Amino acid sequence: MRYLLTYLLSTILTVASAQNNILVFQSDFGLKDGAVAAMKGVAAGVSGEIKMYDLTHEIPAYNIWEAAYRLMQTAPYWPAGTVFVSVVDPGVGTTRKSVVLLTKSGHYFVTPDNGTLTLVAEQLGIQEIREIDEVNNRRKNSQASYTFHGRDVYAYTAARLASKTISFEKVGPKLPAKVESIAYQKASFTDGKVKGTIPILDIQYGNVWTNIDRETFSGLGVKTGDKLQVSVFDGQKKVYEGRVTYVNTFGDVPEGQDVGYFNSLLNFSLGINMGNFSEKYKVYSGSEWNIIVTK
Amino acid sequence: MRYLLTYLLSTILTVASAQNNILVFQSDFGLKDGAVAAMKGVAAGVSGEIKMYDLTHEIPAYNIWEAAYRLMQTAPYWPAGTVFVSVVDPGVGTTRKSVVLLTKSGHYFVTPDNGTLTLVAEQLGIQEIREIDEVNNRRKNSQASYTFHGRDVYAYTAARLASKTISFEKVGPKLPAKVESIAYQKASFTDGKVKGTIPILDIQYGNVWTNIDRETFSGLGVKTGDKLQVSVFDGQKKVYEGRVTYVNTFGDVPEGQDVGYFNSLLNFSLGINMGNFSEKYKVYSGSEWNIIVTK
Amino acid sequence: MRYLLTYLLSTILTVASAQNNILVFQSDFGLKDGAVAAMKGVAAGVSGEIKMYDLTHEIPAYNIWEAAYRLMQTAPYWPAGTVFVSVVDPGVGTTRKSVVLLTKSGHYFVTPDNGTLTLVAEQLGIQEIREIDEVNNRRKNSQASYTFHGRDVYAYTAARLASKTISFEKVGPKLPAKVESIAYQKASFTDGKVKGTIPILDIQYGNVWTNIDRETFSGLGVKTGDKLQVSVFDGQKKVYEGRVTYVNTFGDVPEGQDVGYFNSLLNFSLGINMGNFSEKYKVYSGSEWNIIVTK
Repeated sequence: MRYLLTYLLSTILTVASAQNNILVFQSDFGLKDGAVAAMKGVAAGVSGEIKMYDLTHEIPAYNIWEAAYRLMQTAPYWPAGTVFVSVVDPGVGTTRKSVVLLTKSGHYFVTPDNGTLTLVAEQLGIQEIREIDEVNNRRKNSQASYTFHGRDVYAYTAARLASKTISFEKVGPKLPAKVESIAYQKASFTDGKVKGTIPILDIQYGNVWTNIDRETFSGLGVKTGDKLQVSVFDGQKKVYEGRVTYVNTFGDVPEGQDVGYFNSLLNFSLGINMGNFSEKYKVYSGSEWNIIVTK
Repeated sequence: MRYLLTYLLSTILTVASAQNNILVFQSDFGLKDGAVAAMKGVAAGVSGEIKMYDLTHEIPAYNIWEAAYRLMQTAPYWPAGTVFVSVVDPGVGTTRKSVVLLTKSGHYFVTPDNGTLTLVAEQLGIQEIREIDEVNNRRKNSQASYTFHGRDVYAYTAARLASKTISFEKVGPKLPAKVESIAYQKASFTDGKVKGTIPILDIQYGNVWTNIDRETFSGLGVKTGDKLQVSVFDGQKKVYEGRVTYVNTFGDVPEGQDVGYFNSLLNFSLGINMGNFSEKYKVYSGSEWNIIVTK
Repeated sequence: MRYLLTYLLSTILTVASAQNNILVFQSDFGLKDGAVAAMKGVAAGVSGEIKMYDLTHEIPAYNIWEAAYRLMQTAPYWPAGTVFVSVVDPGVGTTRKSVVLLTKSGHYFVTPDNGTLTLVAEQLGIQEIREIDEVNNRRKNSQASYTFHGRDVYAYTAARLASKTISFEKVGPKLPAKVESIAYQKASFTDGKVKGTIPILDIQYGNVWTNIDRETFSGLGVKTGDKLQVSVFDGQKKVYEGRVTYVNTFGDVPEGQDVGYFNSLLNFSLGINMGNFSEKYKVYSGSEWNIIVTK
């Protein structure tokens, strides 16, 4: 009976994480040159069945933290079996490992293991990690090239995986279930204070997003319409201190008013109705930016 | 006989507007974060058959007029049955309705009804409008989120419609055949003057596009090579006055010369051969920018 | 026997260059307006089988040299049979020809013949060129438009070719095997000096790419770790002179150090580890930018 259950469970997991021909690209390459198109050409040459999408190619150059954040922000909305390839790789040519992470949610992430996996490993769970065997999983005739792993190894391997040309096992040897991680302030509630980090800006609108979830926030015992006292720090330096109105939606207050609200990821955020909070108060983001909220 | 005709006509219309698995996205989200990718992930989860394209995600933040213009500019070039989803939504969370418009041309538009439909309703004709029933047409487990209708309602509903997972009728209840509209100066010819608005710039090249069509323009009785007298107003304020050469194509005049010509939408436009008319003369666009042309 | 060989060879060539439903777009239109989406709509209307990709739409306005470079940089990574459409067309409406080039590598290029084909013709080889017959290969009802060949002729013809709606022969009459070419300094080694041009920047990172290949470079007889003497000229004017370290990969030197290396196209390049060589030394690119390297 126990064996049967194990068998059934493993069957379900296999099905849930079966690759689905969907390949999603992320990088810090921008869209002005041919780098992204070269990666997609390699993938198109692997199989005509692959459906390719872009997460973003506008990650600021070398910004591993933001790469980590964007994967965590979007992967849960894609079907299980989707293969993500993320190439933000300041250490190309050094000793960082090239890996594929399969999360418990059934998503695959093909990337250098340099911190990019920090948040998806934490939030989606590590099912299994494999190191890419670059002898078998490397575009033919690419050995003379030193610098474009994104095209020759990552896009090539991701396309072979997404199209089921290879199984996950054929990626390469299994690694311990642990990824390189970037340290940051977790969301917490103690002594009447909610603390967290500002992982990212909602840059298009200038809103400031934190990692504070509803449950942590609920410690404050506030309701919509109440005022909140907010302090923001860049490392040790206080950058902003002020009072904002806690709202469900920007439309609840007049134009120009500062608000606190829960964003589409259900994290506490700061904004200005029809304005740009980040620009106005010079509040930016990263693992070193922290926030304290009280009543 | 009359019944037969009605039956045949309705069959033809049904065929012409049958959804074709094509989904075209527009927004003011930009491509630097994960918002567009989250919408596409939701759509990919609805059906593996959908082919997704982008109109643009660089609509200036909250600029409903420009969203309206881009839909009108491009929709006619897509096959009947194509589903467009446009998310420029300053009033998210307020009382604007979430709708799907089916035009007489057989195109579907999924959007907040906030003026975005002004121009496609006018030019492609309203066949039927339905309000999105957000109980049935909302991504599972998304009820706790207040702010990302683009992902949880619009992309989800558009994907279900494009892939024929639901019929148009299942979008929700039928509304009166009327959309929220933005007022603007229609093209006209009276007393030897052609009047119109400057709905948009051809921003990449700095050309100034008007809404003046060939037929209205023909009232002037000019031929290519003639000079035209042009005045441009921002509301009441005159911003530009000058003479331009009326040409078929920029190649007809030397570099640096100001011209009037008919653009790819067959509307009268202003430009400089190998130059930027908008930057040089500080002429911009929107429903409040007007133009007068005389001989 | 000879006939049999000829027959077999022509069969193989036909198969190798058989269109594969892949259509790759390039232009200087940017992504802020509807021009690219209108081209894709026209292509989607030709056939539901076409898979569309973007090379880039951020070619600087009218920059034919860069259009030529991006095609050469990426085409080899796409499968034979892929159709590229490139619309950088300052001479629209003038006498430049509209053509389709089939290279010996089996790739198709649909474009105005204005220099855009300089590098792919040289490096991939001319198999055959045909002039687009604009009577048969033009979107229906588009005759009244003077200026958007990209949509009405190029995208339409490319989509018909990619989807095998027409054969290559039906594009139009065969032309002599010669394209319009832009002159530039070829890579050379004489008198202990390597000379070349700077065709392009790796703009995202500020690296400076030359057209100097490994074989030409090998004349210098240097090994990694050696210093190189580098001079860069904009036409006749010397813009940069300095010494850089020759490395395999940026990780081989400390942050901030100037290096020479071979990029992902296996061409000699200049960079700064974690820095921006182009901005720091005001070194840019184009057919008029040249470089001399000595020991």
